[in-house]
Amino acid sequence: MTTETSADTTIFERRESQVRSYCRAFDTVFTTASGSTLTDAKGNIYTDFLSGCSSLNYGHNDADMKAALVDHITSDGIAHALDMYTGPKAAFLETFERVILTPRGMDHKVMMTGPTGANAVEAAIKLARKVTGRTNVISFTNGFHGMTLGALSLTGNSGKRGGAGVPLTGVTHLPFEGSLGDDVDTLAVVENMLTNDSSGIDAPAAIILELVQGEGGLNAASRTWVEGIARLAKTVGAKLIVDDIQAGIGRTGDFFSFDEMDIEPDMVTLAKSLSGFGLPFALTLIKPELDIWKPAEHNGTFRGNTHAFVTAKVALEKFWADDTFKKDVAAKAEILEGHLQIIAEMVPGARLKGRGMMQGVDVTNGDLAAAICAEAFKQGLVIETSGAQDEVVKVLAPLTTPVDQFTQGLETLVEAARTCLNATTQTKIAAE
Amino acid sequence: MTTETSADTTIFERRESQVRSYCRAFDTVFTTASGSTLTDAKGNIYTDFLSGCSSLNYGHNDADMKAALVDHITSDGIAHALDMYTGPKAAFLETFERVILTPRGMDHKVMMTGPTGANAVEAAIKLARKVTGRTNVISFTNGFHGMTLGALSLTGNSGKRGGAGVPLTGVTHLPFEGSLGDDVDTLAVVENMLTNDSSGIDAPAAIILELVQGEGGLNAASRTWVEGIARLAKTVGAKLIVDDIQAGIGRTGDFFSFDEMDIEPDMVTLAKSLSGFGLPFALTLIKPELDIWKPAEHNGTFRGNTHAFVTAKVALEKFWADDTFKKDVAAKAEILEGHLQIIAEMVPGARLKGRGMMQGVDVTNGDLAAAICAEAFKQGLVIETSGAQDEVVKVLAPLTTPVDQFTQGLETLVEAARTCLNATTQTKIAAE
Amino acid sequence: MTTETSADTTIFERRESQVRSYCRAFDTVFTTASGSTLTDAKGNIYTDFLSGCSSLNYGHNDADMKAALVDHITSDGIAHALDMYTGPKAAFLETFERVILTPRGMDHKVMMTGPTGANAVEAAIKLARKVTGRTNVISFTNGFHGMTLGALSLTGNSGKRGGAGVPLTGVTHLPFEGSLGDDVDTLAVVENMLTNDSSGIDAPAAIILELVQGEGGLNAASRTWVEGIARLAKTVGAKLIVDDIQAGIGRTGDFFSFDEMDIEPDMVTLAKSLSGFGLPFALTLIKPELDIWKPAEHNGTFRGNTHAFVTAKVALEKFWADDTFKKDVAAKAEILEGHLQIIAEMVPGARLKGRGMMQGVDVTNGDLAAAICAEAFKQGLVIETSGAQDEVVKVLAPLTTPVDQFTQGLETLVEAARTCLNATTQTKIAAE
Amino acid sequence: MTTETSADTTIFERRESQVRSYCRAFDTVFTTASGSTLTDAKGNIYTDFLSGCSSLNYGHNDADMKAALVDHITSDGIAHALDMYTGPKAAFLETFERVILTPRGMDHKVMMTGPTGANAVEAAIKLARKVTGRTNVISFTNGFHGMTLGALSLTGNSGKRGGAGVPLTGVTHLPFEGSLGDDVDTLAVVENMLTNDSSGIDAPAAIILELVQGEGGLNAASRTWVEGIARLAKTVGAKLIVDDIQAGIGRTGDFFSFDEMDIEPDMVTLAKSLSGFGLPFALTLIKPELDIWKPAEHNGTFRGNTHAFVTAKVALEKFWADDTFKKDVAAKAEILEGHLQIIAEMVPGARLKGRGMMQGVDVTNGDLAAAICAEAFKQGLVIETSGAQDEVVKVLAPLTTPVDQFTQGLETLVEAARTCLNATTQTKIAAE
Repeated sequence: MTTETSADTTIFERRESQVRSYCRAFDTVFTTASGSTLTDAKGNIYTDFLSGCSSLNYGHNDADMKAALVDHITSDGIAHALDMYTGPKAAFLETFERVILTPRGMDHKVMMTGPTGANAVEAAIKLARKVTGRTNVISFTNGFHGMTLGALSLTGNSGKRGGAGVPLTGVTHLPFEGSLGDDVDTLAVVENMLTNDSSGIDAPAAIILELVQGEGGLNAASRTWVEGIARLAKTVGAKLIVDDIQAGIGRTGDFFSFDEMDIEPDMVTLAKSLSGFGLPFALTLIKPELDIWKPAEHNGTFRGNTHAFVTAKVALEKFWADDTFKKDVAAKAEILEGHLQIIAEMVPGARLKGRGMMQGVDVTNGDLAAAICAEAFKQGLVIETSGAQDEVVKVLAPLTTPVDQFTQGLETLVEAARTCLNATTQTKIAAE
Repeated sequence: MTTETSADTTIFERRESQVRSYCRAFDTVFTTASGSTLTDAKGNIYTDFLSGCSSLNYGHNDADMKAALVDHITSDGIAHALDMYTGPKAAFLETFERVILTPRGMDHKVMMTGPTGANAVEAAIKLARKVTGRTNVISFTNGFHGMTLGALSLTGNSGKRGGAGVPLTGVTHLPFEGSLGDDVDTLAVVENMLTNDSSGIDAPAAIILELVQGEGGLNAASRTWVEGIARLAKTVGAKLIVDDIQAGIGRTGDFFSFDEMDIEPDMVTLAKSLSGFGLPFALTLIKPELDIWKPAEHNGTFRGNTHAFVTAKVALEKFWADDTFKKDVAAKAEILEGHLQIIAEMVPGARLKGRGMMQGVDVTNGDLAAAICAEAFKQGLVIETSGAQDEVVKVLAPLTTPVDQFTQGLETLVEAARTCLNATTQTKIAAE
Repeated sequence: MTTETSADTTIFERRESQVRSYCRAFDTVFTTASGSTLTDAKGNIYTDFLSGCSSLNYGHNDADMKAALVDHITSDGIAHALDMYTGPKAAFLETFERVILTPRGMDHKVMMTGPTGANAVEAAIKLARKVTGRTNVISFTNGFHGMTLGALSLTGNSGKRGGAGVPLTGVTHLPFEGSLGDDVDTLAVVENMLTNDSSGIDAPAAIILELVQGEGGLNAASRTWVEGIARLAKTVGAKLIVDDIQAGIGRTGDFFSFDEMDIEPDMVTLAKSLSGFGLPFALTLIKPELDIWKPAEHNGTFRGNTHAFVTAKVALEKFWADDTFKKDVAAKAEILEGHLQIIAEMVPGARLKGRGMMQGVDVTNGDLAAAICAEAFKQGLVIETSGAQDEVVKVLAPLTTPVDQFTQGLETLVEAARTCLNATTQTKIAAE
Repeated sequence: MTTETSADTTIFERRESQVRSYCRAFDTVFTTASGSTLTDAKGNIYTDFLSGCSSLNYGHNDADMKAALVDHITSDGIAHALDMYTGPKAAFLETFERVILTPRGMDHKVMMTGPTGANAVEAAIKLARKVTGRTNVISFTNGFHGMTLGALSLTGNSGKRGGAGVPLTGVTHLPFEGSLGDDVDTLAVVENMLTNDSSGIDAPAAIILELVQGEGGLNAASRTWVEGIARLAKTVGAKLIVDDIQAGIGRTGDFFSFDEMDIEPDMVTLAKSLSGFGLPFALTLIKPELDIWKPAEHNGTFRGNTHAFVTAKVALEKFWADDTFKKDVAAKAEILEGHLQIIAEMVPGARLKGRGMMQGVDVTNGDLAAAICAEAFKQGLVIETSGAQDEVVKVLAPLTTPVDQFTQGLETLVEAARTCLNATTQTKIAAE
C-alpha cells in the first residue's frame, strides 16, 4: 500500500475542509507507524510524543493486537453488528469485568455509546438529568468534554464554544483547583456556590470533571480536592461523572485516573485509548442503580465497534492483568519529570504541570511553547501544546515507548527548548 | 477466534446497560458474517435484511475490502492519526473526488467529522449557524438525525427526545410531505410558515431533511417537493442540508438519494455505509464558499478513521466507477417492490413505503409489524420495523445480496406475514 | 395644570428614548381627555379611535369612576399595599365575582399579577408549566402576547422577537385560523402536528390564543375553530389559556371574547381596559384546581393597583350589571361594519377583519393603511393600523362613544380613505 | 368609601389565588393610610416599616402629591396615552432632567418601560444584548431582579426560580461581595472568571447588580467593590446596569444608591418609589450612545403612567431640589443604626446589614426573625424579613417618618426582639 503513497498534499488543500488542524503543525504525509515511531511518505521517521492525543497509549500497531485483529478479519469475524450480541463483545465485557472492574470492586454497567468521547459524555449527562429530574450540570474552568452540542456546553474554551452558533445552556462552570490562584480555596468557593440557596445556580444533576485537564493545560487536581468534590456531589444530590477519556487507561499511572483516590464515580466516560489500537470506541460506565435507560433511548449506528472489542480485549489482558505495566509507567513518569524540570529551569516563571505520563511544562506563553514544538518537529519529534493560551508543552508519549527512545525524545525536546530560548535571548540582545 | 465464543448471554445481562436494544429482538450471539449471511455461536445462519441499518450496503466482509484492510494492517499502515495528512486519507479523497464528486460537478469540500452520523449532523448545523448568523434550523416531522444534543433537537421521535432531560431548542419542526394527509400541500404550508414575518418562526440558518426517512417510516419525498424545499431554502436564505446517512451510498439507487433531482445541497452528511465495511466513519460535504471553519473549530479524536479510508476507497472503485452496480440495484429494487406488494395486498389499508432498496410495507399497526419481523427471524431472516408506531416492515438488505438469496429472503418474509395474518384471523374467529 | 403645559416637544427629543413610537404618528402634546375626545396643548380636539389600544373601552375620565377615585384619594384611601388585604381589593373581588364570574358559572380564582398584560401572560404560562411538568407552549402565527422574555417567546412578530437578543425558546408556533389560506383546515393541521408522536413538537403545557388577534391583523377565529382548539387542548393534556387582554372587556361585544362559545378556558388573562380608567392593572383567572402556587412564587411590587380596584369596581357595576351596555355595543358594531364596508368596496382586494367593536379593513398594503391613518389624523381622528405588514386600518373606538361622534368619526375615516385612493390614482395616472 | 369596608376576609379566601403572600403575615384588611401610618377596617393603626418594599419612600398619600393628582383628575387631565406626548410627561421629564440628571452630569436617555421593575430590567438586558451582540449576562448571588422570564433568570432565589417551569438561561451568576466569606476577595474571583478565556463563561453583554441587595439580605457592596466591578465591565466590554429599583430614590441616602461612588452606569433601572405615591411606574436610564432602539421595539400598554408623572414631578421638586431631605435621611439612618445595634447585641452572632435607611439585623436564623416581625406586628408595627433564609429583620420605613414615630417604632422593634429572645431562653431553660 505504501508504495503508491505520494507526498503530495494538494488533494488536501483542494478537497479537505479548512477545519483540519493537526496537519498544519505537522505538514507531511504519514504512512506507517509502529510502536512510538511514525514514518512519512518521504521515508522520514519521527518519535511520537502526541499519541493521537492519548489515543495510542500502547503505541502504534501493537503486534498482539494486530495479530488478533487480522485473525478476526480474515476469519470473517463480524465487523458491524449494531448493538446485537456478538462473540467479541462478550469477550471484551468478560475481560473488562475480570481485569478492570472486579479487582476494583466496581459494579458499574457498561454502556456502549457512539464511538467518540463526546458521545459517551452526552450519554452520561443525559442519564444524570433523567435520573435526577434536574437540568443543570456543573463543569469546570478549562475543562474539555467534546464538540457536540451537549458536550460543548460543558467545555470551557471560548473558541470552541463560539463554534456552536447558539448560546450553550444547561451548564454552570465553576473554578477548577488552582484556577483562581494558589491562595484561593476553590473547593470552598464551589461548595459555597452550590449550597447557597440564592446563588442562582440551579441544583445540579451532575458534576463532571477531568482529574487532569488534558486540553486545558494539564491541570492536575489534588486528591483532597477531588475527594471534596465527590463528597459535595453527594451532599447536593448530584451524580459524579469522571471524564477519563484523555487521562484514563494508564495515562496517569493506573487504569483510571482516580484509582489512588477514595471516590466512587457514578459514571465514568472512556474513549481514546480504550480500543488500544486507535480505533473509534467509547463507553460510559454507570452505577447499576442509575441504569434506568429504556432500550434504544440513546442509540446510534456504531455503538460497540467490533474490531475495537477484539483489540481492546488483547490490550486489557496484555497490560492490566498484573501490575508490571503500571510499575513501568511509573518509572517512565519519573524520567519524564526529570527532563521537564530541566526545561522549567531554563524559563523564568515556568512550572511543571500534570501527573504520571501526562505531564508538561508551562513555559508562560503560547508563542514560546509553539516555537519549541515546531523546533522539536524539525528534529523528528511529534509533540503539541495545551492550555488556554497554548502555553504548555505537553508530552503524551506512548506508555510503551522504549526507555532509550523515550529518553532520546526528551533530550530532543530539551535541545529544542534551549534553541528557542537562545534565539529569544539573541533577539532581545539584538533589540537592545 | 470463533472457537472460543460462547452462546451464553449472561455477561450482557450482568454488565451491559439496559439501553441495548437490537439484541432484544435478535436474541442470539453472532460471530461471523459474509456477504448477506450472518452466523451465530450455535452455527445457525441468517439472511441479513437489516444491514446494520444501512451500514452494510455492500454486505459483510467484502473480499476486496478485507484484503486491502488486512494488507494495510499487516504492513503497519497507520491506524490513528488525528487529522494529520496520511497516505490512505489522500487516496480516499482522490478517489472520492474522481468517482463521486467530479462526475456530478460537485465542488464540495470534505469535512472529516467524528465517526458518527450525529457528529456529521452537528457539524453541519454548527456551520450553517456560523455562516448565516442565525440560530433556528428547520427539520421535519418524523425526521431522525441522531442522539447527541444538537442532532436530537432535529429528531422528531418523542421517545428519543424525552431522553435529553432538557428542553431541546433551536429547531422548528415542520410537516414532511404527506404527513398532513394526502390532500394537504405541505410544501405550501412550509412556505407559508417560513415567509410569514409574523409566524413566530425565526429566520432559519438551515433546512435539514432526509429524502427518504429511514427511521420515520420510509416516507419518500417526491422530486417536486424536494425541489420546492430547495428553492424555498434559497428564498429564505437558509442553507440546504441533505442528511444522506441512511438513504445515501446506493440505498435508493444511486450514490446520493438526490442524484435524480435538480437540487444542489449546501451540505450533505454521510456515514453508515461510507466505509463500505461497517467501520465508524462520517463526513460532511460543504460548498466551498461556506467552508469558513477556523482550524479545529470542530475537532475530535477519531475524525478520519484510517482503516475506513482504506475500505471506503476500495468500495468506491469497485461499485461506483461505472453504472453496473446502479443498474443491478435498480433490478433488485423491482424484485423487492413486487414481493412487498404481495404483503400489502394481504393487509387491508396497507401500503408500500420508500424508494429503491429502501422500501417497506406499512401494515397499519406496530403489533402486526413486530409479529411479522419476529416470525421472520424464527425463519432465519434478520429484519426490523420503522415508523412512529413501528408500523412499517422495512427491508434494508445489502445491495449486493445475490438474487437467489434475496428472493428467498423475500419469500420468507411473505410467508411470515401470511403466518401472522392467519394467526390474527384465527384469533378473531375464535373471539367471535 | 394644563395652563403650564407647553406644546414644545424638544424635551422628548432630548431625553426620551428612541423606542417611543405612538408619538411619532401623533405628533402633538395631548393634555386633557374626556369620553372619546382628546385635546392637545394647542387646543385642537381629536376623536379617539385608538382607545389606548383598547385600554379605554369606557372612554377617558368617566365621570363616575373619576368621582370614586377622587373620593378615594381625598379620604386617604390606601394607594399601594403590595398584596395585602385592603377594602378596595375586597370590593373589587366581590363585584367581579357577582357581576362577571357567578353569572357565567366560572369558579376561577383571581391572581393579581404585575400590572401589565405581559406579566399576566408570564404568570399563566409559568403556572401551566408547573401544573403539567411540561415546558412547551403552543401559540399561534400573528399572535401578540407581550414583550418580556416569556411573553415575547409567544409573540409572532419578527421585529418584536428580534429585540430579545437571545433565541426565544419553549414555544411552538402553529398556524392560526385562515393563516394558510382559505382552503387549508388549520385546525386539522394543528391537530395532526400535536397528535403525531414523531412530529418533534414536545407535548404542550398550554395552548394560548387570542380569539381576535389585535396586533396581528384583527384575525377573528370562528366558533368552530376555537371550540376545536379547546377540545384538542383537553385531548393532548394542555391547559387552555385565552389571552383576552385586547379582545376582552366588551371589545368584541360581551365581557369576554369567548362568551358566545362553548369553551371553558383553564386560564384567562385580562389587562388594558380592566381598570376602566386606563390605569395599570392586570390579572389572570385560574381554574381553582390549577391554583397550586406557593405564596409569593410569582410576586411583584405593583400587583393589585388599589386605585384601579376603585375604578374597576365602578366600571363593572356601571356597564355589566345588566345587558344594556352589551346591546349598545352590538348596535355600534353594526354601524362600524357598515362604514368599513364602504372603504372595503373602494379598494380592490380589501376585506373586513375582526368582530364587534374590534373591526378594521385590510386595505392590502401597509403604505395605503398608513396614509389613510395619517390623513385621518389631519382631520382630527386618532387611529392606527394593525397586521404583520400594518395593512389593516383598525378601529378601536371607546365603546361608549356617542353615536353621533362615532358616525362622524367613521365618515372622517371614509373620507380619508377616499382622499388617499384619489391621490394614489392621480399618481398612477401621472406615472402613465 | 371606607364606610362600606368590611373586615371580612372570606372573599380573598374564596376568590384570590394562593399566590398571595404579604396578607398572610399581616392578616387584616387595610383601608386608609397617611404618612407612615396605616389604618385597618377595625380602626387599628399601624406604623409602616415596610413602605411597600421601598415603594413608599415618601410615605402614604403625601399631601402635595395628593393635591396635584386630584387636581389632574378633576380637570380631566389625560390618564392613559400609551407613549404619546403629553403635558405631564413633558413636565416630569423636564423636572427629572433639571433636578436629578443635570446636577449629576448624567446625559442618559429615559426609556418609559412597562410600569414594573421587572419590565425595566427586561428592557435593559434586551438592549445590552442588542448593543453588544452577546447573549450572556452576569448577575450576582442573592440578587433579585423580578419575576418575568428574563428578569427571573437574573434572580438568585431558588424558590422563585423554580416557579419558571423551564430552565433559566442566558445568565451567569457570580459571587456578590462577602458571599464567599470575609476572607475571599470576590472581586478577584469575578475578574478571574471573566478574563479567563477558557472559563466557559461566555463574554457578557452586561453586568447587572444592586448596590444593596434588598431581597437577598441587605448585603451592601463597598465602594471599592462596586468601582472594581464597573472597571471590570469596561475591560470585558460589558454594559454596567445598576438595578436601583429598591435601593434607589433616597433609600440609601441620596437619589441613586451609587451617588457617592465613582462609576457611570450604562443603564439604571428605577421603579418602586419613582412615582412617589405608590403608583405603578418604572423607567430605564440609558447612555445616549446605547439608545439604538427602533421605535416600539420594546413596547407595552402602560408605559408612562400619566398619574405617576404627576406625582413623581411633585416628589422630585419637593424632596430633591436641595439637600435638606438628604441630610434628614442621613440623620434618621443614624437613629436606625443605633437601635439595630441594640438588637444585634442581644443575639450571639448577629450583625448589622445594609446602608442608610435600608438597614436590618441578621439575627442568624429565619425562625427568630419571623418571630420578631410577628411580635412587632402584634404591637402595631408592619415589618418584614429579608435574606436567603429570611434571617434579616429589615427596616424599610418611609424616609419621611417623623422622628418621634420612627423612634417609637424602633423601640417597639427592640421590645419585640427582647420578647422573642426571652421566650427562646425560657424554652431552652425549660428544655434543660
